[in-house]
Amino acid sequence: MNAEIISVGTELLLGAVVNSDAAIVAKALSELGINLLHTSVVGDNPQRLREAVETAIARSDLLIMTGGLGPTADDLTKETTAAAAGKKLALHQPSLDRIQNYFNEKHVSENQAKQAWLPEGCTVLQNDNGTAPGCAFQAENGCTILMLPGPPSELAPMLHNYAVPYLQQSQEYTIVSHNVHIYGRGEAPVAQLMDDLMNGENPTLAPYANEGECYLRVTAKAHTQEEADRLCQPLIHEIRQRLGNFVYSVDIDSLEELVVRELAAQGKTLATAESCTGGLLSKRITDVSGSSAVFHMGVATYANSAKEALLGVPRSTLEQFGAVSQETAQAMAEGIVRVSGSSLGIGITGIAGPQGGTLEKPVGLIYIALSDGENTWVAKRSPIGRTKSRDWHRHCAASHALDMARRYLQGLPVIEA
Amino acid sequence: MNAEIISVGTELLLGAVVNSDAAIVAKALSELGINLLHTSVVGDNPQRLREAVETAIARSDLLIMTGGLGPTADDLTKETTAAAAGKKLALHQPSLDRIQNYFNEKHVSENQAKQAWLPEGCTVLQNDNGTAPGCAFQAENGCTILMLPGPPSELAPMLHNYAVPYLQQSQEYTIVSHNVHIYGRGEAPVAQLMDDLMNGENPTLAPYANEGECYLRVTAKAHTQEEADRLCQPLIHEIRQRLGNFVYSVDIDSLEELVVRELAAQGKTLATAESCTGGLLSKRITDVSGSSAVFHMGVATYANSAKEALLGVPRSTLEQFGAVSQETAQAMAEGIVRVSGSSLGIGITGIAGPQGGTLEKPVGLIYIALSDGENTWVAKRSPIGRTKSRDWHRHCAASHALDMARRYLQGLPVIEA
Repeated sequence: MNAEIISVGTELLLGAVVNSDAAIVAKALSELGINLLHTSVVGDNPQRLREAVETAIARSDLLIMTGGLGPTADDLTKETTAAAAGKKLALHQPSLDRIQNYFNEKHVSENQAKQAWLPEGCTVLQNDNGTAPGCAFQAENGCTILMLPGPPSELAPMLHNYAVPYLQQSQEYTIVSHNVHIYGRGEAPVAQLMDDLMNGENPTLAPYANEGECYLRVTAKAHTQEEADRLCQPLIHEIRQRLGNFVYSVDIDSLEELVVRELAAQGKTLATAESCTGGLLSKRITDVSGSSAVFHMGVATYANSAKEALLGVPRSTLEQFGAVSQETAQAMAEGIVRVSGSSLGIGITGIAGPQGGTLEKPVGLIYIALSDGENTWVAKRSPIGRTKSRDWHRHCAASHALDMARRYLQGLPVIEA
Repeated sequence: MNAEIISVGTELLLGAVVNSDAAIVAKALSELGINLLHTSVVGDNPQRLREAVETAIARSDLLIMTGGLGPTADDLTKETTAAAAGKKLALHQPSLDRIQNYFNEKHVSENQAKQAWLPEGCTVLQNDNGTAPGCAFQAENGCTILMLPGPPSELAPMLHNYAVPYLQQSQEYTIVSHNVHIYGRGEAPVAQLMDDLMNGENPTLAPYANEGECYLRVTAKAHTQEEADRLCQPLIHEIRQRLGNFVYSVDIDSLEELVVRELAAQGKTLATAESCTGGLLSKRITDVSGSSAVFHMGVATYANSAKEALLGVPRSTLEQFGAVSQETAQAMAEGIVRVSGSSLGIGITGIAGPQGGTLEKPVGLIYIALSDGENTWVAKRSPIGRTKSRDWHRHCAASHALDMARRYLQGLPVIEA
């Protein structure tokens, strides 16, 4: 089955908005094992939209439209696509009821009501997070067409709750994917190490890079989910064998989520003391809902005076070794354990740039310490290769700190020999 | 001039990567006043790529290709596009020299060297952040074609430093845009208030939403930059008249950047005490390079015990009013001013969700306090309308705190009456 996505909206052509809808749909199709061959964006222009839809219907088995289902005059997707597919629109009373309910009004405006007009005979995809319903139907030539709303907060749940199950009905096979998450080894060397495993057909194996980390996706298809899952397991085992401690999880998608779970399972707590990352690490930990059970306190001690006052980093350490040093990172980690009473403490200090680097301490030099009150480990990140952004250095330093905590909690060497 | 973007890369069709390249290029084209009518994504497949390029050359005056210029076997953009445009590739020696230099090697691999082969007679667009150069040339039918590398960290600087100047040469007019940034009023009411100003042709006015904020873009074209700029000014003045204190800047793109600049200009400092935002506010402040001059310290006091120990929030306040209360927010802001010795302190406490809400204190209820040591102001954000995500509540609370600091620093009422 060959698929294609058309996203509708002039705002996408002005660069005001990134087309995250296409990526969300593309990922879902990939997980369903459906081949996506084209994605395109068209503005709110009926003629160009009609041309794009006609081309897509002629060449693809599945067309997914995103955006342009709303109440305003330039929301033209439904009218134009239905016409190109040879369908009329008909009022779908339950959708109108839902819209009236949403606004708590018996008579909504004509514009709002327009959203309840859908291609006749279509399957309606309910919108649990907004007013415009989606729909699925077949064009005269057999091409399956789905229309989904533009706002990602409406599209994503509709896709996962209604559109994916709809598409699964027509799929002979079930697809199961597992993501093996890796920290500490880049995509290129990982891919090289897995070279002989990447030609498999079922399961397949593919590497992906992701902001200073990477992951391997193992995908299998079978008639049942259990069978597909069973096909994946030997390959996952082999990956673990080859990568050892660099694998941090299967299917737990971030280091912060893993660390929060491990801390909670072990009844431990973590506190953070950040300099160059300025609160990013504590922000990422508290991104995880429920982190309050394991994270009580973090400090962003940007100035030396704050490192002294809040963490008790000795002035002599700061003067002798500098704020960006192994010794200061260590004193920060030990200080935050003392101040917070947490089981574990992290200290991060470095130069995130773009200013502030010197020949001796260049931009990207960052020290990261983990302490459990008895022992303290310090890692050093040095800038290598091409120049990276401030965001990049900060993100990677926070990830590195989380990986050290993960290793500690998993009973592994905190610093790989 | 009608333009079109084709992004090349199977990873974009798998949903592993969001197509931010297209948004970056689209924004630049919009600022140049060039009409973008289509964007599309094609995988690393020579036949489909060739079809897409041929369609684009036939219907557009300008085609911008992104991605697929690299060293690997599936990087096919240059070969395929040149062939479709009736051009041969020729070795560009200065680019080969640059690649050898980049790797610090006299003889680079054939794959690496392949990147220095470019369409004959093209204008080379230098890559200051990677190995693959870009290029610009004309197809036989007169369509201008640009090829830019895929990684955004290479594409964006090449676009701004080399591709935009190249495109400006062929533009009769210069386009100038100014963004008027607004906090505290949504896109819809702002657009309504500006309704009569939005039909202008030169300058034009357009509203954009942006994560809990919005901005108005004023764009004018003229033969010189000064003249275009002069055309914008009366409209910007009128917007300021109508929106008053809700306008926080013209062309300073974020509240955190504005606040850091104002603090630096006034020789003041700011410290933060965060509960539900968990370090996001200090992270955003320290996103701004050079923020170390005005930001010395922030604390993420997630647990009540941390609020007591680090900030001196009285246990009686926590017990009587609860951690999520006006009184606790006030005590946090005043506490961080005392502890840090900074000119200003911010305290944030609330329920970011998705768990932890009650009927009395629902998810989204957040108190934000600003103190200068003498006076303290407390704002309350209540959840309204449809359910928002944890990220959304946290982001908006941090923005609200920054806006209170901005108002204080600009000598405006901290809380609008």
